[in-house]
Amino acid sequence: MQTSDLSDHISQRYNKDLEDLRNNVLQMGGLVETQLSLAITAIVTGDSELGLQVANDDYKVNKLEVLIDEECNRLLATRSPAAGDLRLIVAIIKTITDLERIGDEAEKIGYLASKLAEMDRPADSYRELKSLGNHVLQMVRDAMNAFARLDVAASYAVVREDEDVDEEYDAITRQAITFMMEDARSIRRVMNVTWSARALERIGDHAKNICEYVIYMVEGRDVRHTEIAQDAE
Amino acid sequence: MQTSDLSDHISQRYNKDLEDLRNNVLQMGGLVETQLSLAITAIVTGDSELGLQVANDDYKVNKLEVLIDEECNRLLATRSPAAGDLRLIVAIIKTITDLERIGDEAEKIGYLASKLAEMDRPADSYRELKSLGNHVLQMVRDAMNAFARLDVAASYAVVREDEDVDEEYDAITRQAITFMMEDARSIRRVMNVTWSARALERIGDHAKNICEYVIYMVEGRDVRHTEIAQDAE
Repeated sequence: MQTSDLSDHISQRYNKDLEDLRNNVLQMGGLVETQLSLAITAIVTGDSELGLQVANDDYKVNKLEVLIDEECNRLLATRSPAAGDLRLIVAIIKTITDLERIGDEAEKIGYLASKLAEMDRPADSYRELKSLGNHVLQMVRDAMNAFARLDVAASYAVVREDEDVDEEYDAITRQAITFMMEDARSIRRVMNVTWSARALERIGDHAKNICEYVIYMVEGRDVRHTEIAQDAE
Repeated sequence: MQTSDLSDHISQRYNKDLEDLRNNVLQMGGLVETQLSLAITAIVTGDSELGLQVANDDYKVNKLEVLIDEECNRLLATRSPAAGDLRLIVAIIKTITDLERIGDEAEKIGYLASKLAEMDRPADSYRELKSLGNHVLQMVRDAMNAFARLDVAASYAVVREDEDVDEEYDAITRQAITFMMEDARSIRRVMNVTWSARALERIGDHAKNICEYVIYMVEGRDVRHTEIAQDAE
């Protein structure tokens, strides 16, 4: 298998720096997953304080991004990496940008959760946001696992999964418009719901991006904007 | 003699490669500016066909991104660039990601313009979207000029400009909620307006990102998530 060959290659050839770099990316992914998970909890439980805490903690994600970015630049400058090593570092430079943006969206969701907590709560405790949130949280987890194991098949699965997330988002938006038309007093609240849904949908996009970098890293070809990527849109 | 001729020749080729790379990025920036400009025109003039044309033409932006990305990888692999050249290539890898995302937002605005064209039109022809649109279009132009001239002062100006764009976006959103509360029949149309405004606001973010890469490229330090960047948020 190409994947296991590449894994072997990595464990044999890459020095400790590259291994540390990969671990830092996984650590950043773990932090982003936690932030997203807490933001969803804050919405579902109406916990204003938790929402604000998530928003305040985004700086931790940003700090990790800058650290990893600097380490990538240092390795590029001092080790002149080639072939697979180079693809790994370029893929990491892109991956951390998407992780940082997921952090930004989690920050937004945290703020929106604190606003929603102050408003009337629907009987179903935002079941639709919980469902969409858990869906994209799983996508982020799967993306980071695919990154950790350089798993191309799992990466394609996440790329395809994004289709379902987009449909779920569209359904929430249609429902939101219906609610607002039926009851004008719900508009402010429902707008916060649609913004939360939009942020979650964008997180799905970022998870998909990360998986496309994994495919590029392993197979050395760019699948973005190709038929496979288009099919999954 | 022969050796030095050869190394002259190689460094000339290398410089030409880097120059071509920079020009390709500027070409991609120009294409993205055109797409954004046409998308704004489609909204303001209610031109459904133009909106769809912008959406259909997004593949041109994507093609350029893949081409430039491959060229960056080739130069990193074959030239082992150092110092300023390395920073240029890393900055370009990031810049084209943001340009591609601006293209995606312009595509969205194109679709929204075609939808808005089929609905009732306000007397002011979406003056507020025109104003916000021209504001972010200018930011994108300024960002690409700053990139072309490696102009740090101009880059900081764009970073600060993003503050005004965010305020303009907030004002449009507040107005939209008021409209929807006053007239439920406007909800579908006004939602398309807020989505267009959101896409424009995100384009401002991407222009700001590009300017942060320019500052990094010239000064060799990462200004993202630092006080200056935070002040401008």
